[in-house]
Amino acid sequence: MKIELVQDSYGKSAVRLGKITRHADKHEFKEIHVNIQFEGDFGIVYTEGINKNVLPTDTMKNTIFALAKEHPLTTIEDFGLYLTEYFLSHNPQITAVTVDLVQVSWERMENELMSEPYTYIGGGNEQQTAKIRRTHESIDVESGIRGVRILKTAHSGFADYLFDKFTTLPPSTDRIMATELESSWQYHNIEIIDFQKIRIKVRNHLLKSFADHLSRSVQHTLYAMGETVLENVEEVIEIALKMPNLHYLLVNMKPFEMDNKNEVFLASGDAFGYITGTLRRT
Amino acid sequence: MKIELVQDSYGKSAVRLGKITRHADKHEFKEIHVNIQFEGDFGIVYTEGINKNVLPTDTMKNTIFALAKEHPLTTIEDFGLYLTEYFLSHNPQITAVTVDLVQVSWERMENELMSEPYTYIGGGNEQQTAKIRRTHESIDVESGIRGVRILKTAHSGFADYLFDKFTTLPPSTDRIMATELESSWQYHNIEIIDFQKIRIKVRNHLLKSFADHLSRSVQHTLYAMGETVLENVEEVIEIALKMPNLHYLLVNMKPFEMDNKNEVFLASGDAFGYITGTLRRT
Amino acid sequence: MKIELVQDSYGKSAVRLGKITRHADKHEFKEIHVNIQFEGDFGIVYTEGINKNVLPTDTMKNTIFALAKEHPLTTIEDFGLYLTEYFLSHNPQITAVTVDLVQVSWERMENELMSEPYTYIGGGNEQQTAKIRRTHESIDVESGIRGVRILKTAHSGFADYLFDKFTTLPPSTDRIMATELESSWQYHNIEIIDFQKIRIKVRNHLLKSFADHLSRSVQHTLYAMGETVLENVEEVIEIALKMPNLHYLLVNMKPFEMDNKNEVFLASGDAFGYITGTLRRT
Amino acid sequence: MKIELVQDSYGKSAVRLGKITRHADKHEFKEIHVNIQFEGDFGIVYTEGINKNVLPTDTMKNTIFALAKEHPLTTIEDFGLYLTEYFLSHNPQITAVTVDLVQVSWERMENELMSEPYTYIGGGNEQQTAKIRRTHESIDVESGIRGVRILKTAHSGFADYLFDKFTTLPPSTDRIMATELESSWQYHNIEIIDFQKIRIKVRNHLLKSFADHLSRSVQHTLYAMGETVLENVEEVIEIALKMPNLHYLLVNMKPFEMDNKNEVFLASGDAFGYITGTLRRT
Repeated sequence: MKIELVQDSYGKSAVRLGKITRHADKHEFKEIHVNIQFEGDFGIVYTEGINKNVLPTDTMKNTIFALAKEHPLTTIEDFGLYLTEYFLSHNPQITAVTVDLVQVSWERMENELMSEPYTYIGGGNEQQTAKIRRTHESIDVESGIRGVRILKTAHSGFADYLFDKFTTLPPSTDRIMATELESSWQYHNIEIIDFQKIRIKVRNHLLKSFADHLSRSVQHTLYAMGETVLENVEEVIEIALKMPNLHYLLVNMKPFEMDNKNEVFLASGDAFGYITGTLRRT
Repeated sequence: MKIELVQDSYGKSAVRLGKITRHADKHEFKEIHVNIQFEGDFGIVYTEGINKNVLPTDTMKNTIFALAKEHPLTTIEDFGLYLTEYFLSHNPQITAVTVDLVQVSWERMENELMSEPYTYIGGGNEQQTAKIRRTHESIDVESGIRGVRILKTAHSGFADYLFDKFTTLPPSTDRIMATELESSWQYHNIEIIDFQKIRIKVRNHLLKSFADHLSRSVQHTLYAMGETVLENVEEVIEIALKMPNLHYLLVNMKPFEMDNKNEVFLASGDAFGYITGTLRRT
Repeated sequence: MKIELVQDSYGKSAVRLGKITRHADKHEFKEIHVNIQFEGDFGIVYTEGINKNVLPTDTMKNTIFALAKEHPLTTIEDFGLYLTEYFLSHNPQITAVTVDLVQVSWERMENELMSEPYTYIGGGNEQQTAKIRRTHESIDVESGIRGVRILKTAHSGFADYLFDKFTTLPPSTDRIMATELESSWQYHNIEIIDFQKIRIKVRNHLLKSFADHLSRSVQHTLYAMGETVLENVEEVIEIALKMPNLHYLLVNMKPFEMDNKNEVFLASGDAFGYITGTLRRT
Repeated sequence: MKIELVQDSYGKSAVRLGKITRHADKHEFKEIHVNIQFEGDFGIVYTEGINKNVLPTDTMKNTIFALAKEHPLTTIEDFGLYLTEYFLSHNPQITAVTVDLVQVSWERMENELMSEPYTYIGGGNEQQTAKIRRTHESIDVESGIRGVRILKTAHSGFADYLFDKFTTLPPSTDRIMATELESSWQYHNIEIIDFQKIRIKVRNHLLKSFADHLSRSVQHTLYAMGETVLENVEEVIEIALKMPNLHYLLVNMKPFEMDNKNEVFLASGDAFGYITGTLRRT
């Protein structure tokens, strides 16, 4: 019998970086969580326990902190490009490096009551994400958002579907549609891109399309959302969407002799629909 | 040997309610999660298995949905007062009822690009809470917020503390202070109170005080925050604060011959400080 | 207006300790997670920012590690007693110290195939807990277990309960009863106690009683379980039980023209019952 | 501009099924959580909102419950094969169906004190998994385990690795190695396979190899574990392993003038190594 190592990689996860950039009158604070993975010619590490080509994952962590000191952290994509360039050019033993970055939301405290130059308030579940994979031949950049909880109380139905002997779901022309959107997108090219400006633009089109669409199914709305992005954000060549269907079930009030006119719902934690789709400009 | 049942209660947890209130030109959507517990003379339920006085927890759930249909859900405190009044007056077998309510954040989608009358976007980790306990003699109302992530990059130090033989922490006059604030407060009286208006006022004072304080310790800032609320919100008689100290550790860059001037930090997931305090107007 | 600090405490949470005890032919490995809180005369820390009496929480962490080196870690109760004795006697500024300890399950890898003197396999959700609170006048020791998932498929019903206009639950004489048990108990006195031996004895009686009981409600079984412990473990003076009712709902198969004879259930993640009780020997 | 739907799928997640099989003298209880996804010619669902070929995800859920009633649930692989066969043959509109199954551990309560024919105790974090993907041309079966927490206190080191200017990790010839193993494997063919017997065999070889290996790195041990399985379990053609490196950091006790002889460790929740590899018989 012969055994082949058909896949291998190693790296560091959950490198949680905070950075203060100090200006005369205020600070900038950013928090970025990084996962990094190396691929390369590491066969003898696995088969023989020979570590001479292994950069410790602890060193990867140190390097991320050290490079963060010198980089302005403008966007997670820019920092990811910088990290992957550094690791690939300084480590001849590797053939590919992949970094996943998540920006944790910290917003400066500012409202009618206060404007605080050194104080931040954390955002919510929503996360900004980026994934950069770089080899000597190619650079792939994927930007994204996830954890975006959205819900609409009108203009959503689901009817005229296939019935079989196990179908009990009643058709609906007026239901709550709710999801926790995850979306990621790729670019025509990554030169002279303002990644953060595009992220905001993509996000706004996704949200507006979700709100405006006359939905006949989650699939139908998912497509409309992706289509709107491709039509309006020319830098994006492909966009993927994942939309779990978070069910708000109409409470049956007939036993109480009450008429629940699409008013009261149970937000269910049980089985949920899960819908995906990827749209590409051709 | 004699055995006494010295404490008992029962109820339903995680009743997750969604409600649409339909207006001509727009909808209101609210989501509230309720826990409810009954206390009373239930000894024979436990000792003999006699259920004749047991209102099923499933009925409690149904009742919460049914009452939600009729109540405007203005605030979670108002709804909790309504629920506890109903349960106590309709169940002579109970002596006390307690409800915990959490309002899940859903904000109407509104910005310069759009104003969507039927669409909502979910908020973050921050939750609005209320706890009402009602007996035939008394009503206790506690309002709160939790999951409020706040961080400041200036005006925070910790020095001049006690040293013993295990102390290795270096004093600091310039450190990041970060916490996930949980706070709850009680009222002089609960008549004619606009609970939501007070919650916003309390929250604003807590945040502003956190931002402005010249902090010598988490304890020091916790007290200042509570004091500001008691000084500025006359309806509040007592306020409790819980402030975990989320450590951002300065990365040691001397081994790399770099000078980390309080710029780059590790957001640690290890052991964390935990500080509490309750202030009362006397 | 005068403001009083009516409650305060501070300490360190999530001190995660691992310890190897090295024997000639095998190792012992234990992992214990500790939370610690100090109370005392700390008013000026809060009100004035004067830290001279504040032992840093970082020092508490260091001390836990240092004392763990010298202590055999026989049981979490013994280690907790040692920790609280040390902290109280070395810190005249405090009046009370409380430690919460959780033992993480690591079992030596041993079965018919292997007996490995240096290798451990992690246990499940079930945790062993202890809480020690010590002042100059008193020592309170509470032992416990939590996360104990148990389920029975026979000898459980719920019927003859109170009906009102919102009651729709059908009575059942044959249902699944499932819970994730949390229990803690206190002792007559804490001299010459083998805490771990008693924990195993209490746990066995709780489980056996859960299995054997002819249950008319969760309350009914909870009481029987507590009663069995008090009758059989003389060192225990009081025991508290928390039993969420994890619902396995019978799937309605009539629409499919199938007869579900108490066979197929939906393990629900929605609203669940929550039952508590504390029994005391008198 | 033309837009192409380059990927799409839909289905139901978190279908949590419990089943009692009733024998004269005892019950069998199994709990299985299922995710299911359909692929097929669903373009007009997305682009036009035409649902006529959409089997509702609610029907998928109903079908899983109905088929579970008739199937003995011997193994999750057998049940998954049955489910996918049913869905593919009854739904001409689909081209592929994928099910992910997780068996939740419930063990009959049996020890020296008791043998309870109707009572079960829940297992731990460890899960048994299966993934079946079926098209009209092919059936892919993947079996697995995950959440397997293992730790060794001897025979593990990491040294002689690459140093660069950011490397500060000291070499070690005696460290704790701990991981939460996830592994999945594929078969030469899936005829006449006793999936559960093979799962137990694979698991035993993985654990024994982890225990016995003289480890020079996580990679080194990962390979040895996979190799042992391929050498000893002839039905397996390929095995993938994921091994996060859960760091137990030696506590520096020099500041306390104590000598920590590899005894006391901090179980860190910060950045961790993450190592993967897939071995295939050729």
